[in-house]
Amino acid sequence: MSILEILKGARNASLSLAGLKDEIKNQALLAIADKLENNLDIIFEANKKDLEGAKNISKSVFNRLKLDENKARDMIQGIRDIAKLENPVNKILWKKELDDHLILTKITCPIGVIGVIFEARPDVISQISSLAIKSSNAVILKGGSESVNLNTLIVKLINEALLSVSGFPQNAINLIYSHEDVAELLSFDEYVNLIIPRGSNSLVKYIKENTKIPVLGHASGICHIFVDIDADFEKAKKIIIDSKTQYPSACNSVETVLVHKDYSFKKELIEEIKNFGVEIVESPEDWSFEYGEKTMSLKEVSSLDEAIEHINKYSSGHTECIITENIDNAQIFMNLIDSSGVYHNASTRFADGFRYGFGAEVGISTNKIHARGPVGLEGLTIYKYLLQGNGQIVDDYVKGDKKFTHKLL
Amino acid sequence: MSILEILKGARNASLSLAGLKDEIKNQALLAIADKLENNLDIIFEANKKDLEGAKNISKSVFNRLKLDENKARDMIQGIRDIAKLENPVNKILWKKELDDHLILTKITCPIGVIGVIFEARPDVISQISSLAIKSSNAVILKGGSESVNLNTLIVKLINEALLSVSGFPQNAINLIYSHEDVAELLSFDEYVNLIIPRGSNSLVKYIKENTKIPVLGHASGICHIFVDIDADFEKAKKIIIDSKTQYPSACNSVETVLVHKDYSFKKELIEEIKNFGVEIVESPEDWSFEYGEKTMSLKEVSSLDEAIEHINKYSSGHTECIITENIDNAQIFMNLIDSSGVYHNASTRFADGFRYGFGAEVGISTNKIHARGPVGLEGLTIYKYLLQGNGQIVDDYVKGDKKFTHKLL
Repeated sequence: MSILEILKGARNASLSLAGLKDEIKNQALLAIADKLENNLDIIFEANKKDLEGAKNISKSVFNRLKLDENKARDMIQGIRDIAKLENPVNKILWKKELDDHLILTKITCPIGVIGVIFEARPDVISQISSLAIKSSNAVILKGGSESVNLNTLIVKLINEALLSVSGFPQNAINLIYSHEDVAELLSFDEYVNLIIPRGSNSLVKYIKENTKIPVLGHASGICHIFVDIDADFEKAKKIIIDSKTQYPSACNSVETVLVHKDYSFKKELIEEIKNFGVEIVESPEDWSFEYGEKTMSLKEVSSLDEAIEHINKYSSGHTECIITENIDNAQIFMNLIDSSGVYHNASTRFADGFRYGFGAEVGISTNKIHARGPVGLEGLTIYKYLLQGNGQIVDDYVKGDKKFTHKLL
Repeated sequence: MSILEILKGARNASLSLAGLKDEIKNQALLAIADKLENNLDIIFEANKKDLEGAKNISKSVFNRLKLDENKARDMIQGIRDIAKLENPVNKILWKKELDDHLILTKITCPIGVIGVIFEARPDVISQISSLAIKSSNAVILKGGSESVNLNTLIVKLINEALLSVSGFPQNAINLIYSHEDVAELLSFDEYVNLIIPRGSNSLVKYIKENTKIPVLGHASGICHIFVDIDADFEKAKKIIIDSKTQYPSACNSVETVLVHKDYSFKKELIEEIKNFGVEIVESPEDWSFEYGEKTMSLKEVSSLDEAIEHINKYSSGHTECIITENIDNAQIFMNLIDSSGVYHNASTRFADGFRYGFGAEVGISTNKIHARGPVGLEGLTIYKYLLQGNGQIVDDYVKGDKKFTHKLL
């Protein structure tokens, strides 16, 4: 099948998915979980084949690629957990009487066809497919070539499971394979409504530069912590160490710490941070460099305003934190920082869909429209307006024969 | 000033606007209204100069360009009306306890810098500027060259009014002039967060094809009405005539009417529509052609399913209507049609921000993300997450020493 044929099939599937009852979607999710659970042997085999084929990869990439018993169990549990979440579509946002017997309802609905491009990780296919099903969207998936055997098998098993669910449309979950496929996908903006890249900065940048389709994601995570003059030393120490060292390669790790010039414990703070194996760069060439490891930039600033200005200039709009006991300063910071997450006395590592209690995470967005920060199922939905009348026409209102009531119901 | 300098100024203004109190924004709006009201003489003069300079324009374009007493009064009242609307930013969407003393708040905030490109109409500048101010966004405006005198004067008066408002930042409202300016604007995706084109299909298409910045708008309005087998004749007649003739060049006018093959009054319905001066095309070459005048396509369909399929294939995703007394069919239609507005027994002309009760309209969007259908002030906002803690770190939760409570407050 050509990419265009796949997209036409996905578009048709998406139109049927929009009308599916939540029970059928949940039935589909449980069928997928069962199917994967009953085929773990061949799943592990496919993963083994991928690992054997993957030459010259680092230990960390090998560990990421490897599907062990624990990861497989979490993967299957993840599918069942998504079935338990509230149906994100057909939710009434509000209902309004425009006039007698003329009722406007704003209701959530799926986006349509979503392309998800990700690097190798064995559980992404089932996770994204489950989120798409729960939100009534069709997906086109493209995984890393290192896991082609596993990805192909999992999509095959998912589609077998879906075939067994009465009423579930075909062509909802699709896999494509090559860079050429991706290039073609990115060109069909009339068929694909949203692209979600999950992976390295360079992957996200490549996609943003090569498509007219809206892209939901983040290219980099340049998070900041500002240690105000009134910062509590223990909090500052704990938060900076957690934000930098708890998982240094995560996008919500801190890259730059700004310290007020009159903060009394600056020396001690630096000492403590260094003791945790963190390398400190005091005048980096690039204030928006993402270290991704136990290295961070440090800058002295002379005021709250200077800290805010620095952050709004160099941040990637992900997550920033002020450490202070001064409530007024905290409020000014939270008000004026233009990032998706603005924190007071808490680790930047909290920026995560599960920690925010969303139950599932599509990814993190540094976009300024649609969805921002950790994105849950809600980010895979949009809304439509339903208007129920009994023959009303606009001319009566333009002429003044009738008047709108505009009463929220 | 270069476009880049203008954009840097606008970006700085947007960061200050985000922190402005609603009172100051309203003060600014009232100051603008007063300023324009006190300078109507020179405003009419500038408009006259534009009209004298506009050669070879049709009567209808002349009427559109002309600012008369009534339009001027409405324009000024429009600004005062926007001041009365609820502040769309700093609205708490929800508040959640993640754990003791760890509170997550989802709050609305401005998008940032918005570029608005529109064709000649004298009241757009003040309307868009007012919406931007109320939603704490900075704007870059580009109007039609036919109204360059009026546009320049109004932006000058607006900025003079804003200078008198203590605390209001400079460079919030900016005007650019040429096609080259627009081309440059469209290239600065790192400074401009959203583009709103208001005007012809070709303007919107040009913009969508020439920028990586998200675009909010609609290129065309191909609206449909389906007359079901159980349609009430009087309702069908009234709704079709209103949808086609009340304002034929509007984007929410109907272009195609589908009639069920077994509908008993098809002949009479066509007769009545023709009596209103509507030309009917029974097998057009292009089912997605926007007539924009008193002409419409007509097609016989053999089922509800066929109607839904036709609409989802040819519609521009704007507004569609089913006329039927069969509630089940109405529900299926409303559930399965993938458009921003789906109506039952009501004219498609209701698709409008004022008729929906939004108080102000930014435009109509056929996007599938961010904002869809008539867009009010809400479409000029996004949200951010504020997290207030007292020193919490993620490591405690990963290790299991602490557990999330995730309680909605």
